[in-house]
Amino acid sequence: MNDIERLLAIEEIKQVKAKYFYGLDHKDWDLWQREVWAPDGRLEVPEADTVVEPFEKVREWVSASCGDQVSVHHGHMPIITFTSDTEAKVIWAMEDRLYRTKEFPLEDGSTWLHGFGHYHETYVKTDAGWRIKSSMLTRLRIEMANVQGMPGESA
Amino acid sequence: MNDIERLLAIEEIKQVKAKYFYGLDHKDWDLWQREVWAPDGRLEVPEADTVVEPFEKVREWVSASCGDQVSVHHGHMPIITFTSDTEAKVIWAMEDRLYRTKEFPLEDGSTWLHGFGHYHETYVKTDAGWRIKSSMLTRLRIEMANVQGMPGESA
Amino acid sequence: MNDIERLLAIEEIKQVKAKYFYGLDHKDWDLWQREVWAPDGRLEVPEADTVVEPFEKVREWVSASCGDQVSVHHGHMPIITFTSDTEAKVIWAMEDRLYRTKEFPLEDGSTWLHGFGHYHETYVKTDAGWRIKSSMLTRLRIEMANVQGMPGESA
Repeated sequence: MNDIERLLAIEEIKQVKAKYFYGLDHKDWDLWQREVWAPDGRLEVPEADTVVEPFEKVREWVSASCGDQVSVHHGHMPIITFTSDTEAKVIWAMEDRLYRTKEFPLEDGSTWLHGFGHYHETYVKTDAGWRIKSSMLTRLRIEMANVQGMPGESA
Repeated sequence: MNDIERLLAIEEIKQVKAKYFYGLDHKDWDLWQREVWAPDGRLEVPEADTVVEPFEKVREWVSASCGDQVSVHHGHMPIITFTSDTEAKVIWAMEDRLYRTKEFPLEDGSTWLHGFGHYHETYVKTDAGWRIKSSMLTRLRIEMANVQGMPGESA
Repeated sequence: MNDIERLLAIEEIKQVKAKYFYGLDHKDWDLWQREVWAPDGRLEVPEADTVVEPFEKVREWVSASCGDQVSVHHGHMPIITFTSDTEAKVIWAMEDRLYRTKEFPLEDGSTWLHGFGHYHETYVKTDAGWRIKSSMLTRLRIEMANVQGMPGESA
């Protein structure tokens, strides 16, 4: 890639991840399928003992496990490294908040999760553009509680 | 636009929004007028039943309603779509924290707000550069409480 | 600089700061030395009455004062201004969370800090690439408490 091609690829990768977050918090799994994930995409969430692939299974798992929650996911400060003209490694800092209900709690029975960590991802340039090929979440800290939001946060 | 012009426009739009946040949390409305908003800019905040335009009225409303508060607004992960060479649509993820006093509470009497959502914006390229033409806020979640900050957050 | 050179410099500066955050929260001071700071870098933290330089001293001070804590630092929305072809001023919005222990508390005895503010930085283009030359932290708000995390946040 020349300089302009690399800048365009960086910008496109940022757009893909922006749509990842928007789709996740709006439960727009069609957006994920159309513009975010590669067909053979793979998701790894060690804290949930979960590895799923290809994307079809990712969609099934995420839509089932996140369907009824309110969530807020934010991403920050990507470290982007191209490993070829059509492949990139990206680390994103992230923070997430999950708001569940007693009827749809987290695995340990909690109704609230607040976490901080990093997505370790690979991207691939497909015929349709750059897409997420794999995503693995690590944590700096994670908190769960059996409350509807933190004290002072309950609606 | 060619590729370089598009990359420059994207970068300029990010700078405009960065100055939006800096001006808002530092109450620097002159910065807003000089480098952020188009003269015919329009602000829409459904949760406050508010639509104001042009920018002169936006400035009046925001400086009056936010003047005495400490605030922290952060923006993330823009989805940027150009609708012409001089117009763009942008969605920004956002989080805000407002710290009020009993003497200057929020509308419902609360002194603290913590919210999450998205700005849905349009930008226009004026003779002075790219500027915000319209901004509309939607929410994923919003919390208000009658405390000076959250527990453990009170100064 | 021409347009492409400026875009490349902007992207490189963002990468440097992304590695600043990643290194800080992973205590990877070698990454700081190799890819983040200029050898004559200077760090100023007014709330801690601290000014340290050159980088060797910055590394000593940060690794000693942050070594045993869990921390989460996020950066947002840089305002970037080039003051020459090899120098830039950047303001980053930031949020940080420090989780200490009773055995390794903050200066006032607290074990938890949550802050919001801005880094005011200068960058310099060295033979090895863009690096942080100076960084000064200002605050919009800061909270400290003698708890292991906020209520609902304790692990």
